[in-house]
Amino acid sequence: MVEFKVRLAKAAEAVDRELENLLPTVPELEHRLFDAMRYAVLGGGKRLRPFLVIAGAEVFELEAARCLRVAAAVELVHAYSLVHDDLPCMDDDDLRRGRPTVHVQFDQATAVLAGDALLTLAFEVLADRKTSPDPEVRTDLVAGLARAAGGHGMVGGQVLDLWAEDNPLDEAGTVRMQRLKTGEMIAFAGEAGAIMARARPQQRQALRMFAHDLGLAFQITDDLLDVEGSTKAVGKAVGKDAAAGKSTIVSVLGVEGARDRAILLSGQAAAHLDHFGEKANALRALCEFVITRSN
Amino acid sequence: MVEFKVRLAKAAEAVDRELENLLPTVPELEHRLFDAMRYAVLGGGKRLRPFLVIAGAEVFELEAARCLRVAAAVELVHAYSLVHDDLPCMDDDDLRRGRPTVHVQFDQATAVLAGDALLTLAFEVLADRKTSPDPEVRTDLVAGLARAAGGHGMVGGQVLDLWAEDNPLDEAGTVRMQRLKTGEMIAFAGEAGAIMARARPQQRQALRMFAHDLGLAFQITDDLLDVEGSTKAVGKAVGKDAAAGKSTIVSVLGVEGARDRAILLSGQAAAHLDHFGEKANALRALCEFVITRSN
Repeated sequence: MVEFKVRLAKAAEAVDRELENLLPTVPELEHRLFDAMRYAVLGGGKRLRPFLVIAGAEVFELEAARCLRVAAAVELVHAYSLVHDDLPCMDDDDLRRGRPTVHVQFDQATAVLAGDALLTLAFEVLADRKTSPDPEVRTDLVAGLARAAGGHGMVGGQVLDLWAEDNPLDEAGTVRMQRLKTGEMIAFAGEAGAIMARARPQQRQALRMFAHDLGLAFQITDDLLDVEGSTKAVGKAVGKDAAAGKSTIVSVLGVEGARDRAILLSGQAAAHLDHFGEKANALRALCEFVITRSN
Repeated sequence: MVEFKVRLAKAAEAVDRELENLLPTVPELEHRLFDAMRYAVLGGGKRLRPFLVIAGAEVFELEAARCLRVAAAVELVHAYSLVHDDLPCMDDDDLRRGRPTVHVQFDQATAVLAGDALLTLAFEVLADRKTSPDPEVRTDLVAGLARAAGGHGMVGGQVLDLWAEDNPLDEAGTVRMQRLKTGEMIAFAGEAGAIMARARPQQRQALRMFAHDLGLAFQITDDLLDVEGSTKAVGKAVGKDAAAGKSTIVSVLGVEGARDRAILLSGQAAAHLDHFGEKANALRALCEFVITRSN
C-alpha cells in the first residue's frame, strides 16, 4: 500500500505538470480568467480520475505522454464541476482542499466563466492531434467524455442531487444519482485507455464495469469520510451532506451497511480485471486503495 | 431583402426542428434540467449563427442534414453563453427574447447546470458519426468550436467585457473584446462548411475572414439597436450597455461613426466572397442583412 501511494503521488505530479503546461499564465487583460482556472486545477487533490486513465492505459502499454493529455482532460472536467458545484446557488461551499473556493478567492462571475473555460479546454485537448494521431480515437474520446459529463451523466446527477435535498431518494434512486454524478465520469476514465488502444468492445466494456464498481466504492468511502472524518483530514467541511439532508448510500444503508457495500463493490471491481493479467496490477491496487483511504 | 428574410425564417425553422430532436423531453427525475435546456434553446431568436453555417456549407454543396447538426451545435453554445451571461452574478438580466431568463423561469442552480449541459451537448453532437462519416472532420469541428468558445475565445471576451465595466476600453480594446466575445464563434460558424468539405486552407481562411468582418458589423448594429431601439422591437431591455458603463464600438466612435464602420465592415466581408461565385449568394445577402436589420 505504501508503494502504491508513492506511485499515486508520482502520477499526480506528472498530471500536475501536464495541467500546468495546458494552462500557462497569459499576459492579456483576461489573465484573471486563467488565474482562476489555474487556481481551480492546480490546488492539489488526489488526482484519482487521472490515475485511473493512466493505470487503464498501462493495460495496453500506451505511450505515457498521450495518456497524460487524456488524464488531464478528465481532471479539467472534474475541476470545472467542483467550481460550479461550490457556487452559492449550488452547494455554497467556501472551502475546498483546505483553501477558499474559486468564487471566494475570485468572484462568482469569474468562477462561472472559469468553469466554462475548463470544460471547453478539456474537449480542445482531446481533439488535438497531440492526443492521438488517429482521428477516430480523438473523436471517440470526445464523444465518451461528453456523454459522461453531460445531462445524461454528471450534470444530470448534480440536478438529481440538488432535487434530493427536498425529496430524499431511496436506495435505487441514490445509486442512480451517484452513478450519474460521479460514476459515469469514473467509468469514462477507466475505459479511456481502451478507447486510445482501440481495444475490443469486450475489453472496453470490462474496464467500464470495473471503473463503475470502483467509482461507487470510492463514493461510498467519500460519504463515510464525510460522516466520520475530521475537517483537517478531509480538507473540506464535513458533515455537510447530512446537514443538507442529502441522500447518500450511508444515509440509506447506515455506516456499517455502507462499509460492507464498499468492500463488496471493490471486490466486484477487481473481478472485472481477471482477463488482463499482470498489466492490470495498478488497477487492482486501486481497488484496495479506495476502501482503505483515510482522506 | 424580403426573399432573404423568408430564407432566414425557413432555415431557423429547420434549425429549431434539429434542436428539438437533439433535446427530447426525458421522463426521469432530472427532467427539470432538460426542460431548462429546451427553454433556453427553443425560445426563438434569429438563428443567425446557424444560418451562417448553413449558407457557408452551401458554398461546398454539402448534405443539408449534416450541416444542420453543426448549425445546431453552434446554436447550443450560443444558447449556453446567453444563459450564463444572464445570471445575477454576470449581466443580471431578467428578460431575453421577450421572456423571463432561465434563472428567473427556473432557478440559478438549474441555469448554471443547463448551460453546462448545453455546452457539453454541442461537443457530443459534433463528435457523433451522424455529423460526418470522416473522423478527421468531426475532430476538426470539435477543435474549432472549442477554440472559439473557450478562454481564448468567447469566455475570454466575456471576462474582458465584465472587466471593462470598471475600466473602459479604448477602440482597440473594444474591438478585441468583441472579437473574442462574439467574433470567434461567428468566424467558426462561417468556416464550419469549409471544415466539413475539407476545403483548401485559403478557402477556409477566406470564409473565416468574411465571417469575422460580418460578425463585427453584426455586433455594431446590435449595439446601435441597444442605443436606438425600443424594448419591444429588440425583445430585451435596451440602453443597458450604456447604463452598465460597457465599452462598445458605439460608445467609442459615436452613433454615426459606428454606423459608417458597420457599412465598411459589411462591404469588406462581401469582398472575401469574390472567389466563390454564385454559390456564396446567401452569404452575400447576409452582409446586406446585418446592416439593415431592425431587431
